[in-house]
Amino acid sequence: MPQFTAAELAERVGGALEGDGSIEIHGLESVANAGEREITFVGDEHHARAWAESHAGCVILSEGLTLADRQGSFAVIRVTSADHAMISLLELFEETTPEFPTGIDPTAIVHPDAHIGNDVTIGPHCTIGRGCVLGDRVRLFGGVQLNHDVHIGAESTLYSSVSIGHSCILGERTIIHANAVIGTDGFGFRPSEDGSKLIKVPHIGNVIIGDDVEIGSCTCVDRGKFGATRVGNGTKIDNLCQISHNCIIGEQCVICGQVGIAGSTQVGHGTQIGGGAGVADHLVIGNRVSIGARSGVMNNIPDGEIWYGAPAGERSRILREHAAIRRLPEWSKRLRRMIEANSVED
Amino acid sequence: MPQFTAAELAERVGGALEGDGSIEIHGLESVANAGEREITFVGDEHHARAWAESHAGCVILSEGLTLADRQGSFAVIRVTSADHAMISLLELFEETTPEFPTGIDPTAIVHPDAHIGNDVTIGPHCTIGRGCVLGDRVRLFGGVQLNHDVHIGAESTLYSSVSIGHSCILGERTIIHANAVIGTDGFGFRPSEDGSKLIKVPHIGNVIIGDDVEIGSCTCVDRGKFGATRVGNGTKIDNLCQISHNCIIGEQCVICGQVGIAGSTQVGHGTQIGGGAGVADHLVIGNRVSIGARSGVMNNIPDGEIWYGAPAGERSRILREHAAIRRLPEWSKRLRRMIEANSVED
Amino acid sequence: MPQFTAAELAERVGGALEGDGSIEIHGLESVANAGEREITFVGDEHHARAWAESHAGCVILSEGLTLADRQGSFAVIRVTSADHAMISLLELFEETTPEFPTGIDPTAIVHPDAHIGNDVTIGPHCTIGRGCVLGDRVRLFGGVQLNHDVHIGAESTLYSSVSIGHSCILGERTIIHANAVIGTDGFGFRPSEDGSKLIKVPHIGNVIIGDDVEIGSCTCVDRGKFGATRVGNGTKIDNLCQISHNCIIGEQCVICGQVGIAGSTQVGHGTQIGGGAGVADHLVIGNRVSIGARSGVMNNIPDGEIWYGAPAGERSRILREHAAIRRLPEWSKRLRRMIEANSVED
Repeated sequence: MPQFTAAELAERVGGALEGDGSIEIHGLESVANAGEREITFVGDEHHARAWAESHAGCVILSEGLTLADRQGSFAVIRVTSADHAMISLLELFEETTPEFPTGIDPTAIVHPDAHIGNDVTIGPHCTIGRGCVLGDRVRLFGGVQLNHDVHIGAESTLYSSVSIGHSCILGERTIIHANAVIGTDGFGFRPSEDGSKLIKVPHIGNVIIGDDVEIGSCTCVDRGKFGATRVGNGTKIDNLCQISHNCIIGEQCVICGQVGIAGSTQVGHGTQIGGGAGVADHLVIGNRVSIGARSGVMNNIPDGEIWYGAPAGERSRILREHAAIRRLPEWSKRLRRMIEANSVED
Repeated sequence: MPQFTAAELAERVGGALEGDGSIEIHGLESVANAGEREITFVGDEHHARAWAESHAGCVILSEGLTLADRQGSFAVIRVTSADHAMISLLELFEETTPEFPTGIDPTAIVHPDAHIGNDVTIGPHCTIGRGCVLGDRVRLFGGVQLNHDVHIGAESTLYSSVSIGHSCILGERTIIHANAVIGTDGFGFRPSEDGSKLIKVPHIGNVIIGDDVEIGSCTCVDRGKFGATRVGNGTKIDNLCQISHNCIIGEQCVICGQVGIAGSTQVGHGTQIGGGAGVADHLVIGNRVSIGARSGVMNNIPDGEIWYGAPAGERSRILREHAAIRRLPEWSKRLRRMIEANSVED
Repeated sequence: MPQFTAAELAERVGGALEGDGSIEIHGLESVANAGEREITFVGDEHHARAWAESHAGCVILSEGLTLADRQGSFAVIRVTSADHAMISLLELFEETTPEFPTGIDPTAIVHPDAHIGNDVTIGPHCTIGRGCVLGDRVRLFGGVQLNHDVHIGAESTLYSSVSIGHSCILGERTIIHANAVIGTDGFGFRPSEDGSKLIKVPHIGNVIIGDDVEIGSCTCVDRGKFGATRVGNGTKIDNLCQISHNCIIGEQCVICGQVGIAGSTQVGHGTQIGGGAGVADHLVIGNRVSIGARSGVMNNIPDGEIWYGAPAGERSRILREHAAIRRLPEWSKRLRRMIEANSVED
């Protein structure tokens, strides 16, 4: 990992340095766990108090906060926002060493009809099917499986054991995390003539993923029945999500872990879906919608609305319902008394 | 992909052709996205109106519908149900080219004590353990891992990086999608003598999967503690589901994405479970039961019932509860007024 | 599989034998499915009655129960608890044959800078990156992918196609089931300067997993933004769970299938989380807490409390709310009548 002096870091984040600028920092850590060669971040009163017990050699401090007293030698870098400075330093400390050398590992199987761009890295035990096209600087970690006619845009990274079904298309700078699966058959069946069995409906479509998309580990994006399942440019999907056949997900969406979106549902641009939420099939979810964690959405949602709950509704309505439910047990007694009193009056 | 004339497609679906029967069609697409060499489907008023903006060269039209006016040359095929015709055409257009040639890839490791049937395909980087038995025409995509004594029935397909634990048995014509895991140890522990630790309970059972079963990507079916976890003939399980140790799932069930079924629960035949639903352990779910998406089932369910909600109950009861909850916030005010009024009377 | 006589099994479980002690038993099965060379377990009245239809050659019977009459020859072993005896026999019958021989499969790629302990097993098609350290008697099944600088403690087992990201650390005797993913980047993004895009926040931390931890198939444990995501000694995590960046999970916890825990949340020691539950980010969940299946936790939980529901609360409160909700539809009518009656009085 690279290392920098406190003074260099202060300059990097445009902050005001106090204390010993020559302290060498080789990493980032939390206030509680940081050592004397690590930098930490104090952006609220809670962490400002916790500083008293810290062993960090350097701290980035948001304006308006005062650190608790602490022994020892350390440097303080004052900034407008410790959170913004943190991202800047994460980018600085990010490791740039490649995982393995550029080139095609001799254990990888590359079909002679595949087209491989410049400076591509293909890790051990990968399989690249016939007709695949890999753009320049694509990186495949070990065990990636590309079936025939997969196209992957330049500078994309596929982590270990990702599986991409035939004819799927990924844009440039996509990141697909380990063990994700793109292009599984959609889940569709029809009854047999006599009604006794379920017959598989062929899924002859594909998946088309835009540029700058990130897809988490063990997430599944199914291929279209016909036509494509689409994920728009810049959208980020977390781990263990299910995007079903023929969904059309817009651009710059954020879909958190364990979300499930059923078949043929459309999601607009800039929409955010909280962890564990589910969205039923054939719905239209608008642009810039926010859906709370673990919601169960069974209706279309207009642009810009905030929904929550299961079954989901406009968030403020659901919160009123939850508040009313919380009063129910107490009310039960009074209501029973009133009902009894009324009966007496009858 | 194969191609057909509009006249050939009309004959295939038993429909009445209008317009130019010589138009060559090479694929299926949605009304919005189809081009002049693609066929699309209009089965409702919404799509009949959208036809005005379509560029499809051919359309399958359900009876009773009238297409919006549209410029250009195209063919119309009138049928009873566009949906039924769609399935027929999907089967027609389904690609039949094999992904890779029949035979055992030289990078696959096949134990000398494994028995491999006729015309079996084993893709790159597969591992076939000792004592495995693969029926005729079984197809394994790249990176499949079979531990020892796995039996796979004829004409089954296992997609990339599927893992099957030792001694598990799959029927004929099963389809296991990429990165699914069959035969993980069940999740069972006992407290240590002094209560300070959790000790693993051995799981020495297996998984037995029937004929014509389909299991989705990243779905996990755990092995029995002793005896088998079973999935009956013809049952279809979507992606990212959890079927726990010693579950007995019946025949011809449909289990949608992200469903979890806890240990030792039995599910009857022909039962359908909606996406994201959970079923507690040691329950008995009947035949032809329907469980709504995202339900949380904590009780046995008799044959043929329709359940919903979390905690789940008979669907009509839960819908009445949901309707009552929706009225609660409004009632709160009136009830408070009544309670106050009653107090005055006291 | 090993085999034992009924007399040997009676001695093993410290039970009192009745009937033919020479019957040879080669496995365990349920009352319904056991054959004449299998042993089964009767620990409740239901199974005592089902015994009438069983074909088991031997039965372990809890005290206080009486078996239904049954034809044929069999042995009965009377014990205090059939459940405890079952665990003892599972351990006895557990297969000890190794899946494949000790040593490094010639198809595995091991970086020359990796350090491999004694008696390590590395299965086919594994990749071991530079700087990895594998303790003695570590076992890797086929297709395991270890990126650079992964440390794995002695006697740990990683099943097929597990992926471990760079710099992650696993303790001794850990078990990671097939297709689990440790060390994916956390899910964190920041808006671009002009607000039009989402920019990836680098995740330069790692994952540190304690001794005796078990992690299920397709479970994902994300790496820290900086610092570590931690799972404490002895904790057991089931399949398809999501443990997000910078979570700190305590020791001896039990986390059931499909649970999701959002970023930076801390979970104490000995806490149990039911299947499908979700826990929001930045929370503090205490020691010995119990969270019911499918709960949605949005608040800190003090030590020892039992929570349930979505949104989750103290279990007894939520159960009162659920009971009140169940009465709501019936009350609706009476309340409406009272409201009408009151209006008349106005």
